[in-house]
Amino acid sequence: MKRNKVTRQIELKETIKSMPFITDEELAKKFGVSIQTIRLDRMELSIPELRERIKSVATHEWNETVKALPIEEVIGEVVDLELDERAISILDIRSEHVFSRNDIARGHHLFAQANSLAVAVINDELALTAKSEIYFTRQVKKGERVVAKAKVAGTDQKGRTLVEVQSYVENEQVFAGTFYMFRSNEQKELQQS
Amino acid sequence: MKRNKVTRQIELKETIKSMPFITDEELAKKFGVSIQTIRLDRMELSIPELRERIKSVATHEWNETVKALPIEEVIGEVVDLELDERAISILDIRSEHVFSRNDIARGHHLFAQANSLAVAVINDELALTAKSEIYFTRQVKKGERVVAKAKVAGTDQKGRTLVEVQSYVENEQVFAGTFYMFRSNEQKELQQS
Repeated sequence: MKRNKVTRQIELKETIKSMPFITDEELAKKFGVSIQTIRLDRMELSIPELRERIKSVATHEWNETVKALPIEEVIGEVVDLELDERAISILDIRSEHVFSRNDIARGHHLFAQANSLAVAVINDELALTAKSEIYFTRQVKKGERVVAKAKVAGTDQKGRTLVEVQSYVENEQVFAGTFYMFRSNEQKELQQS
Repeated sequence: MKRNKVTRQIELKETIKSMPFITDEELAKKFGVSIQTIRLDRMELSIPELRERIKSVATHEWNETVKALPIEEVIGEVVDLELDERAISILDIRSEHVFSRNDIARGHHLFAQANSLAVAVINDELALTAKSEIYFTRQVKKGERVVAKAKVAGTDQKGRTLVEVQSYVENEQVFAGTFYMFRSNEQKELQQS
C-alpha cells in the first residue's frame, strides 16, 4: 500500500523510535520506497543516520564499566549496558559470518555474540561460562542485523549467575540462550545476601 | 621419576600410539625431559612429527566426502570423519582464541569447533543447528590442543539428528555438547525407515 509522504514520515518516526537500530535498507523495504527516499525523509525529520543513533545510545558511561573483559573483546557492538542487569549488542552479518554455500549465518557467530554479551553484563573481574542451552529459532542471512538482548535472571543453587539472551532480526526472534556464569565473587555475594 | 632411555622410549612409543595427537611439548612435560630429548627419541624410533602424524590420519578419502560445508569452513583441523557416524578435529588454542586478561580460551571457540564438527559429520548437503546443550567442564589455556570427538547418536521425535561432541585436552574433558541438527533429507530418511 502506497502511503503519502506525510503519513510515511509519521510512521517512519514511530518505527525508528521503537526500533532504533533498524537500517535504512530495512526501512526502505518496510515502506516500499527507495533507500534514497528514506534518507531524504530522515533529513527532513532531523533523524540522524543509524551509526549516529547507535553512538548516541553508546555513551562512555557504561563503556568504562564493563568489568569482565575489555570492551573490544565483546563480539558485536555494545549499545546498552547496566551491570548485573541487562545489555544489548548489535552484530551485522557479513560474508565472514555465513556459510559460503547458502549465505546463512553460522551458529557460532550468533553464539559468540550472545555469550560475550553474557560475559560483559557480569559485574565481576572474572566471568566464565559453565553451561548453556541455546536455540536457533530462525535462519539469519547475510546483510541482516542481529540485536542481542541479555538479561540477568538470578542465581542458581550452585551460585552461578543465569543470563538469558534473546536475539532478534527486526522483530523476529532468531536465537535464545540461557548462560550459567561462574564469577569470582560468587561466594562473597552469597554470604552478603 | 627418572626413567632410563630404553624404558622411556618404550613408554614414549606406547603413549604416541594411544594419543597420536599429543605434542612434543606435552610429551616432554609428561616424561620430565627436554623437548629436544623427545625429538631425538622420535628420530631414533622413526616416529614422525605431529604434523606428519596428523596428515597420515587425514587422508583424502574422507576429505572429499564432507558434504554439508567446504572442509576449510570447519573450525579446527579434521583428522577423522565417517559421515553420519563420527568425526574428530583438533584445535590449537592460540592468542586469538583467549581472553587477553587471563589466557583462558573463550567459550565460543570451543563451541565453534564442536558445532562445525557436528555440521561436518552430517551426510547431507544441508545441515543446520536447531538447538544445543553445552557444558564447559574445564578451563582451556593458551598453548593447549583441544581434540573434539563427534558421534552421531540417533534421531529425535522431530526427525533431527543428534550429535554428541566431547572435547579433550590430553585425557581431560573440557567440553561436552549435544547438537540437534536439521538436515534437508530428513523427511526422505524418515519415509525410508
